[in-house]
Amino acid sequence: MISTKPEIVREVYVHSSYNDKSRIELESICMKNNIALRHNDKIFARINHNQKENCYVLGVFDKYSYPLDNTKPHVVLVNPGDMGNLGTIIRIIAGFNVCNLAVITPCADIFNPKTIRASMGALFHINFQKFNSFKEYTDIYYKHEIFPFMLNADIILTPDNCPAVKDGLFALIFGNESTGLDESIYSKTGAAVKIPQSTLIDSLNLSVAVGIGVYTFALKNNLL
Amino acid sequence: MISTKPEIVREVYVHSSYNDKSRIELESICMKNNIALRHNDKIFARINHNQKENCYVLGVFDKYSYPLDNTKPHVVLVNPGDMGNLGTIIRIIAGFNVCNLAVITPCADIFNPKTIRASMGALFHINFQKFNSFKEYTDIYYKHEIFPFMLNADIILTPDNCPAVKDGLFALIFGNESTGLDESIYSKTGAAVKIPQSTLIDSLNLSVAVGIGVYTFALKNNLL
Repeated sequence: MISTKPEIVREVYVHSSYNDKSRIELESICMKNNIALRHNDKIFARINHNQKENCYVLGVFDKYSYPLDNTKPHVVLVNPGDMGNLGTIIRIIAGFNVCNLAVITPCADIFNPKTIRASMGALFHINFQKFNSFKEYTDIYYKHEIFPFMLNADIILTPDNCPAVKDGLFALIFGNESTGLDESIYSKTGAAVKIPQSTLIDSLNLSVAVGIGVYTFALKNNLL
Repeated sequence: MISTKPEIVREVYVHSSYNDKSRIELESICMKNNIALRHNDKIFARINHNQKENCYVLGVFDKYSYPLDNTKPHVVLVNPGDMGNLGTIIRIIAGFNVCNLAVITPCADIFNPKTIRASMGALFHINFQKFNSFKEYTDIYYKHEIFPFMLNADIILTPDNCPAVKDGLFALIFGNESTGLDESIYSKTGAAVKIPQSTLIDSLNLSVAVGIGVYTFALKNNLL
């Protein structure tokens, strides 16, 4: 967060147990960016409650939103419900150089510490924007070719038939973990795709579906 | 579990709140397989404690192990540490028709309810076998061509260069969530591969790496 978006950081808290050498580095980065470094163990109690691993550094920042880049590929998540999934997906798409994420509400909180931690810091590398409906997204970003991922799609996505899209302007659309994508999106676009899978499972989990979809499109469209 | 491996099922417990029509179906399956169906709400208290969603049906089964099929592709997980990841990975590989899983100990408990639930039942579709070391695995299954997934590998895995392996006998090796694979495996095999990724992240998470690796090999080797 400090190295990619120092302008949003208000202050940093450090726990008294945090004493390895990376702390010195952190102190120097904070000083360079004129960010206050505070010592206060009490503030960690709420965060570390019910966590598997203890947290020793806290960054306080202003919530922000950057409009999506109209010249780059997008991922659109329709009503993602789980903060861990949302963070993992942010980590994945950044890993494949797709750094513009649209989220259709209602959705999991992108600024919850769980989301940010699951993103492993990748949240601060991407642009993201919330929309009240899928239509609101396509009204603004109408140039992108739309590819909804649906279990009942006719086109089976493989590296061979994956489209190379003009100027790389594709938008990959994924539905909610339990309910998938609504048919209304399918009927509007017609280019729905499906990741090949055996009959042994009902579906892949959302973050793996996003991973495979973005990996396939990113390679075919020379993003990696 | 009942439909794929009825021979391991000892009995089934049903909660009194479970009253939709799928219950009738369950009762009939149990009767057909001569499996006792019991009513006991108390036994659910321990399982539902600290769960997001309540559980209404419990299956009691004997732990089992099936040796791997020597004529089919394998996935080998070296010291997987997280039950949720392990279950998700089982779901993924079954989804790509790779149904033979080797696990190198120490590792997360494959029979823990968390693992089974994350596998969405796919656990009962695969063979799995535990080994005390990677060498113990390769001593028995020496015919498979070994592909360790490592961040410092020279070969970047893409659908184009993904190997079509003779008789489909490949084994994809993945390390622990935090520590990855030990160099000793790398030096023994030399065919280590890496999933392409940007510099914005340190690594993909384990289940997504497995998903992309198995998807790519499964398509290239005509498993789907």
